[in-house]
Amino acid sequence: MKFKRYNKKSSYSYTFGYSTTQSLLKNKKSINIIKVLIKKEGLKDKEVLNLKQNLEKNKIPYEINNRLIDKISYKENTYVIGIFEKFKEDIDKNKDIIVLVNPSNPRNVGTIIRTMLAFEFKNLLLVKPAVDVFHPSLIRASMGAFFNINFEYIDSVKDLKNIIKNYKNYSLMLDGDKSVNDIKIDRNKKNCFIFGNESRGLDKDFKNFTNTIYIPHSNNIDSLNVSISVGITLFKTKYG
Amino acid sequence: MKFKRYNKKSSYSYTFGYSTTQSLLKNKKSINIIKVLIKKEGLKDKEVLNLKQNLEKNKIPYEINNRLIDKISYKENTYVIGIFEKFKEDIDKNKDIIVLVNPSNPRNVGTIIRTMLAFEFKNLLLVKPAVDVFHPSLIRASMGAFFNINFEYIDSVKDLKNIIKNYKNYSLMLDGDKSVNDIKIDRNKKNCFIFGNESRGLDKDFKNFTNTIYIPHSNNIDSLNVSISVGITLFKTKYG
Repeated sequence: MKFKRYNKKSSYSYTFGYSTTQSLLKNKKSINIIKVLIKKEGLKDKEVLNLKQNLEKNKIPYEINNRLIDKISYKENTYVIGIFEKFKEDIDKNKDIIVLVNPSNPRNVGTIIRTMLAFEFKNLLLVKPAVDVFHPSLIRASMGAFFNINFEYIDSVKDLKNIIKNYKNYSLMLDGDKSVNDIKIDRNKKNCFIFGNESRGLDKDFKNFTNTIYIPHSNNIDSLNVSISVGITLFKTKYG
Repeated sequence: MKFKRYNKKSSYSYTFGYSTTQSLLKNKKSINIIKVLIKKEGLKDKEVLNLKQNLEKNKIPYEINNRLIDKISYKENTYVIGIFEKFKEDIDKNKDIIVLVNPSNPRNVGTIIRTMLAFEFKNLLLVKPAVDVFHPSLIRASMGAFFNINFEYIDSVKDLKNIIKNYKNYSLMLDGDKSVNDIKIDRNKKNCFIFGNESRGLDKDFKNFTNTIYIPHSNNIDSLNVSISVGITLFKTKYG
């Protein structure tokens, strides 16, 4: 098998860096790990050396290959890369879900996944067109949290309308009806929190079929970054 | 003057994109705007055309120059770039301050600045070594909020210790003493909120000279992304 720079169409993807690769190795999803690449210089590092020994113990193929790492990584100082087969999975229908409508930035979505896990949300629904969740920049920004959540793509807002009938829903809009400070989450219900695209937000139409909420902030800015909005909303509903 | 890709040592920096350049043009700091670059194709866009007319009206130099834009921008579809002279400024000693100790990621700091402005914090203190605040990626991630805050660099944590004597301080640590939910902010005092480096957080020593706080979250992740931590903390202290 010949490995190239990541491409959306590849059947495999990469974890860049030591800690993200560790999250891959510790995943509980029975993901097929094809190979781990290590840079020669990396072996001076105790952590990387331990990783290599663990790979040997668990019979996971690895390769010391500086040239290949330089070819496929985006940053100069990447010492470890995991290569794994992409997988398909479904969200857990009995738990709360986070919906991202048309997210376009891999790093934002990675940060959102890390934040979801922090506040115990494990279901991510992405409405197409949407970022490729296997993009290495997304996986890296998630700090490996990607391997601990469930995700599913759906084709359109029309499909979303059907799905959220089974949930108590909240969608975040600049002109939402209720402040995030004033909503009371019913823990006995399945809840669904919906966030829009990084630059466009959610379409006005969401006012017609969801409960809209907003995060109070000054008028000095147009809007918060979507990952910050998700962070504040999830924190408020769970620990705030 | 010959313009190159951004370099830390340049005497000027860039705003990439229409809306960030608009923030530069509307700034209230009397920043010296050297020139605005516009791509030929951009002129098909009504907003860009309006911008060009405003530049003419306000006698700000501009140039239609695709080649130069391609040379200095990081993304393909950048239609507008502002070029401005770097400036030096001081924080407002009478207002609350946000301190970032050794931040290393320009996009994180840009998002933090956007978030600061959302929650009405306008003073940013950066403890060296720290990211270059004039990095175009930082300015872009701030969505132009960079032009509406005050910043200052200081050399060391030792200097920070002296400065924060005049503030009621809070520093965010994973093992902080109080939950962010339990702190009561005294609006009659000057407050100071301190956040650590993206991967290392704050040194243990901060326990000895600051009031430490934490954000409650699950053990499924090691820590929150620093921009999410700032977002939740500032929201809580101001609007939460």
